[in-house]
Amino acid sequence: MDAFVLSRSLDAVRDASPLVHCITNYVTVNDCANAVLACGASPIMSDEPEDVEDIVSACSALVLNIGTLNECSVQAMRIAGRRARELGRPIVLDPVGAGASRLRTNVAAELVEGLGVSVIRCNMSEAKAIAGVGGAPHGVDALTDDAVDEGGLAAAADFARSLSAKTGAIVAITGAIDIAADAERAFAVMGGSPMMGRITGAGCMLSCVCGAYAGAASASSALLEHVVACVAQFGVAGEIAASRMSPQDGNGSFRAYLLDALFNMDARTVESYARVQEVR
Amino acid sequence: MDAFVLSRSLDAVRDASPLVHCITNYVTVNDCANAVLACGASPIMSDEPEDVEDIVSACSALVLNIGTLNECSVQAMRIAGRRARELGRPIVLDPVGAGASRLRTNVAAELVEGLGVSVIRCNMSEAKAIAGVGGAPHGVDALTDDAVDEGGLAAAADFARSLSAKTGAIVAITGAIDIAADAERAFAVMGGSPMMGRITGAGCMLSCVCGAYAGAASASSALLEHVVACVAQFGVAGEIAASRMSPQDGNGSFRAYLLDALFNMDARTVESYARVQEVR
Amino acid sequence: MDAFVLSRSLDAVRDASPLVHCITNYVTVNDCANAVLACGASPIMSDEPEDVEDIVSACSALVLNIGTLNECSVQAMRIAGRRARELGRPIVLDPVGAGASRLRTNVAAELVEGLGVSVIRCNMSEAKAIAGVGGAPHGVDALTDDAVDEGGLAAAADFARSLSAKTGAIVAITGAIDIAADAERAFAVMGGSPMMGRITGAGCMLSCVCGAYAGAASASSALLEHVVACVAQFGVAGEIAASRMSPQDGNGSFRAYLLDALFNMDARTVESYARVQEVR
Repeated sequence: MDAFVLSRSLDAVRDASPLVHCITNYVTVNDCANAVLACGASPIMSDEPEDVEDIVSACSALVLNIGTLNECSVQAMRIAGRRARELGRPIVLDPVGAGASRLRTNVAAELVEGLGVSVIRCNMSEAKAIAGVGGAPHGVDALTDDAVDEGGLAAAADFARSLSAKTGAIVAITGAIDIAADAERAFAVMGGSPMMGRITGAGCMLSCVCGAYAGAASASSALLEHVVACVAQFGVAGEIAASRMSPQDGNGSFRAYLLDALFNMDARTVESYARVQEVR
Repeated sequence: MDAFVLSRSLDAVRDASPLVHCITNYVTVNDCANAVLACGASPIMSDEPEDVEDIVSACSALVLNIGTLNECSVQAMRIAGRRARELGRPIVLDPVGAGASRLRTNVAAELVEGLGVSVIRCNMSEAKAIAGVGGAPHGVDALTDDAVDEGGLAAAADFARSLSAKTGAIVAITGAIDIAADAERAFAVMGGSPMMGRITGAGCMLSCVCGAYAGAASASSALLEHVVACVAQFGVAGEIAASRMSPQDGNGSFRAYLLDALFNMDARTVESYARVQEVR
Repeated sequence: MDAFVLSRSLDAVRDASPLVHCITNYVTVNDCANAVLACGASPIMSDEPEDVEDIVSACSALVLNIGTLNECSVQAMRIAGRRARELGRPIVLDPVGAGASRLRTNVAAELVEGLGVSVIRCNMSEAKAIAGVGGAPHGVDALTDDAVDEGGLAAAADFARSLSAKTGAIVAITGAIDIAADAERAFAVMGGSPMMGRITGAGCMLSCVCGAYAGAASASSALLEHVVACVAQFGVAGEIAASRMSPQDGNGSFRAYLLDALFNMDARTVESYARVQEVR
């Protein structure tokens, strides 16, 4: 990757230690908070409509995750989102389960269109649901048909760029190969570990960490660079975590190792191990 | 255990990788999701009344856990439960704290009678509350008087069979000795580890894993076999996890080891270590 | 520390194994439950207004944590708090984020004044918000200006005593140096580990463990002793946990080690390592 210096983003997060307001699901919220802390940023969770305007006003970024949405938390997302927009703070959306229920698909669409989110971080099935080209109902994991491999990379990059053009958001679609794109440029991030799909919350954690990276971006022009760097270092963390596993270890230990790897990530490691390439 | 082949159930879960809809408490939900993933199945959590009908329709089983019930989540349980019934999907109920408050006792009774649940997984104090023979108010752990030991095994098996006859559900009562029964047959599962009572959520995790096993049962006639196998392999996982503990380890590490052991469980281990006997 | 025997409190918790009702945030609730279990007590979480009166009636102490407060949980706090007061059970308040939003500041004030809480466990920025001398809006962590060091110790102890006099509660303000005080006496607890600020929930866990210690106090006259002992052993646990860390470990493993250290804490360790001194 020539254009960007991946480690610059990591340093920016560590230096700025941005405060990140997360309205997120209760399944993975603890890991999300610890992942944000591991990266050197500071999380604050609040989903009471009466509380969120004050909270988001003190923060550098807002993360909205619909993994266990309810009427009240969606209302909080609307209020916090509007305030973040007024203040020019980036909003990261994780549309968990878009395509899996009408409510999730509709709420994701409403947030994308109504708020003008800055980053959409999701899997391919959720991205397709947002683009209106989704397949059969399914769970919160991507459909097998939606897996991105080397052969499908160019098509996936085209799709990501067009979704970005349509929504105005940086689009980060993660899977076996990750793609991050704006309307002009798309980057593929290789690596990671299949273990990341065997714990709950790897995607949610990444989205909250993206919030930290977005909050540390000094200008919106640097946002794509930061998102690519964030996805890349998260994949490297997954590889490091998987390499620590002993034969007796499983997803319980991997979960701790993943946080540990984020915690100990440094510029040299990101630069050495991240494999990023532009897909034209 | 002659009648069943315990490892067959484990293989069935791994092969089918069922999607399990869990409406469960926010205390242990992360461990529940990771436990379902560790067994090779896939969890999805949703407790918004407007969302659950779509979600449960895409799933192979439904788990209802009242550990932090509220008005909204109970309504979601009713809607999801009715839909699961219409579709013929198994429902596992974990009546956390039945007997500890009138609300919990009443909601547990309503769900058992109103939905016709397939499996009730609980401790002895909760089972007695459902049977209407509960003792003094208490917390979410079983009363000491309700502990099942070798001497009380026949009586406990009788109780489980009669509760199954009354409710129409497979009854799995766990403790120092676990019992799983339908109206005709009762099985005792020995083993496990006292450490399972020193973490929060071992019971909740088991109930969600039971959802995975129930979701993988090709016919309802195999349900008792699957529940016995599920309880047995969970106990074996607890023993393996406890055996890994170093002198410095406590319930923090045990929690990860328990997930690890579920993750690495294989047919040979279940067959070698599970101790199951029919109690007539 | 001459006046108190720190290890006596630990033994009291292990002997009494008090049941602790926690109305707490969903971010760190799992760690809170496991921390209470690690100390030998038993947690029960319930935040449904219809449920809490029965639950708290069976418990020895009540913990109120406003980390993810909402309209419904605040109502549950009021009901449970009033019942705890009627029954003479101690109430521990953790005013997470007081000063970070008007809602949190107001709810904290309402609970302190309206219920007459027994213990306030918080950081210095939250304590100042309760005292009405808070600074700029911020997140859930203490402002840098509010850090207590050796030089500011006497002033911090004065502040804690006066806040205790004003509120009628034991005040435990934790940070690099911890302070626990009633209106007459203040104690400084040295030690702990900076890693405790790199995981989410160390404060929440301590507050719930304080609930266990308060629930084990045979008389309210022993409450300050128990709170000092609780804060001291938690700091020692943090040091032990940090000392176990390998170069690859980060906040993921530290979190488990902290629970492990609480689990394995014994009287001799507390007496050997705790550093407590009265600040006049």
